[in-house]
Amino acid sequence: MKSCVSFTLLACSVWQVQDQDAKPAASNVPRAEYPLAHADGRVSFRLKAPEAKKVQLQPGGADNGLGKRAYEMSRGTDGTWTVTTPPAVPGFHYYWFVVDGVPVNDPGSECFFGYGRECSGIEIPEQGVDFYDSKDVPHGEVRMLWYHSKVTGKVRRAFVYTPPGYDAGTEKYPVLYLQHGAGEDERGWTAQGKANFILDNLIAAKKVKPMIVVMDNGYADKAGQPTTRMFDFRAFEQVLLDDLIPKIDATYRTLADRDHRALAGLSMGGMQALQIGLPHLHKFAYIGSFSGPPLGGFNVNTSYGGAFADPSVFNKKVRLFWLGAGTAEGRFADAVNTMHGNLDKAGIQHVVFKSKGTSHEWQTWRRSLHDFAPRLFRD
Amino acid sequence: MKSCVSFTLLACSVWQVQDQDAKPAASNVPRAEYPLAHADGRVSFRLKAPEAKKVQLQPGGADNGLGKRAYEMSRGTDGTWTVTTPPAVPGFHYYWFVVDGVPVNDPGSECFFGYGRECSGIEIPEQGVDFYDSKDVPHGEVRMLWYHSKVTGKVRRAFVYTPPGYDAGTEKYPVLYLQHGAGEDERGWTAQGKANFILDNLIAAKKVKPMIVVMDNGYADKAGQPTTRMFDFRAFEQVLLDDLIPKIDATYRTLADRDHRALAGLSMGGMQALQIGLPHLHKFAYIGSFSGPPLGGFNVNTSYGGAFADPSVFNKKVRLFWLGAGTAEGRFADAVNTMHGNLDKAGIQHVVFKSKGTSHEWQTWRRSLHDFAPRLFRD
Repeated sequence: MKSCVSFTLLACSVWQVQDQDAKPAASNVPRAEYPLAHADGRVSFRLKAPEAKKVQLQPGGADNGLGKRAYEMSRGTDGTWTVTTPPAVPGFHYYWFVVDGVPVNDPGSECFFGYGRECSGIEIPEQGVDFYDSKDVPHGEVRMLWYHSKVTGKVRRAFVYTPPGYDAGTEKYPVLYLQHGAGEDERGWTAQGKANFILDNLIAAKKVKPMIVVMDNGYADKAGQPTTRMFDFRAFEQVLLDDLIPKIDATYRTLADRDHRALAGLSMGGMQALQIGLPHLHKFAYIGSFSGPPLGGFNVNTSYGGAFADPSVFNKKVRLFWLGAGTAEGRFADAVNTMHGNLDKAGIQHVVFKSKGTSHEWQTWRRSLHDFAPRLFRD
Repeated sequence: MKSCVSFTLLACSVWQVQDQDAKPAASNVPRAEYPLAHADGRVSFRLKAPEAKKVQLQPGGADNGLGKRAYEMSRGTDGTWTVTTPPAVPGFHYYWFVVDGVPVNDPGSECFFGYGRECSGIEIPEQGVDFYDSKDVPHGEVRMLWYHSKVTGKVRRAFVYTPPGYDAGTEKYPVLYLQHGAGEDERGWTAQGKANFILDNLIAAKKVKPMIVVMDNGYADKAGQPTTRMFDFRAFEQVLLDDLIPKIDATYRTLADRDHRALAGLSMGGMQALQIGLPHLHKFAYIGSFSGPPLGGFNVNTSYGGAFADPSVFNKKVRLFWLGAGTAEGRFADAVNTMHGNLDKAGIQHVVFKSKGTSHEWQTWRRSLHDFAPRLFRD
């Protein structure tokens, strides 16, 4: 594979044409040639904007090899603006263009709901890694489930993964409730996270107990109440406990007890797993916080209503307590380490997972799910 | 309700503030205030673009009250550009902004796949019409089904509606195969068309036989072959007949015979219903072409391989032949009328549906499905 060490737009632009390994990104809409993902992780972006004065590429996330700063794009004589980035970290990264100061999506990309709006996204393949690919194995389904919430007074939508063979069988399954992060929604775990393919592949390899995975929207406003403030999880907690779990247990062939029910999530969803799961250990025997540690400090005696105060009680009750973060996550990784140290000192059984080289992004969470799911529901 | 007869941006802008009936459009992302749908069908659009020289609103579609031409938006002192349109026809309309010549999506809107890319869309309520609303009735599910296609050599995704109570029951259901239009995909019938809510409401009112609805992607390339040209349906035909129908019948509790199988679609999908359905009447007893008539002329003796040549055979075999279009559809409506006239003359039993005042757009197809579905699978 050739490299582009002396990085200049012009050189890379010429080089592109010769790059036999470059492919339209998997995140593109059908038949869109750009963005073009190079085998070494570089990405070539293109936008036609003949009348624009200035066009930039703005990567989302951080520490993913693309950085936080916008890239200036170069105008070709035909009014097409291009840029090729240095190699990005593998995985899924949000991005958008900035056309004369206005953030806009790339018509070549599918849209992915993040930052509270539809965003473009770029999928960078990880060499030799295929645990989240759509392979020729039996596939589970992802179902959109509409249900009436007494808490919100409205119809809500959840995404529900049912494992391969669900319809043909009669057995009951354990359930993982799996939450998205802030600014995302119930689509995130499948569209960005590929949770269904991760489960399909683990199930095909017999590395995981077949399970149902429920991915709800983590936002909720109580009926007749003002809009919920960010990171106030009380309305969602009530939806989860009083509306969603009963609905899931009434609709699917579930093993409807705590020993067969897990709660996990990423970032905000990981915080929800802790804040909602720990006070309700009679409902959940497995808790996973993916990049969702307590950022404001952790005290093993008092945090989370004293759930950890008696280690012997906790260790007996909780069948899996899982914490994870990417090594490039900064304060999230630090807070996971702090919690980990305190739990260790107190003798609280738990698992810590570190995703090497990845930031507060979906590759961390794909890897997290891939590590977490096989630990669930073991006899 | 006040009106805004003398249409000026300034007047409407002032008037907006007093419009108690204006609401964020149902097609907006959560918490986006704009686009703002007024009770009389006008829409106020807004985009923050302080550095842009020129911002326009470009409606998709045609004859929907918004017209084909772009609207010039006015810049406020804070760099926010606004426009309020004249009343639009009810239903769903694609749109986008044009910022210094570049078509871009509205960050306030959900994205909808149309025109081969992600687009913004605006939902204009139709007063007194709720047949496609999400109501407090039992809801069916919409399932994403991944299946391996021998024809394409790839994994494909279909959307499958299963009626309320499907999981709890044991009965078998008839199946409607329902296709999207050109530039759209398997998401269209639920995201834009609200087909699931239409069926939910019809089923709750006992106006339709509960059925499974399969919405596949209408594009396909044969394995190892060049990319299929537009409107060449041969690869998709083979996928439908050899891959999809067997997969559906193997996966769901279907009544797997022609008397319980329908094929319909909109626009390109309606053409597929005719071109694929008519030569395969041993597979389908019900055919619906929503705004998908033969645009190149129709001869009752020779068109579609002579499927209509013997009226008595056709009338005996086909339990429903359904044609529809919006009255504002121009050549599509004309071609439906031409076919209708020829079929009448030949004594071919069929149903013609006219959607009053709507164009080649989703409101026509929502109404089409609402008329078509109750006629299916009657004993």
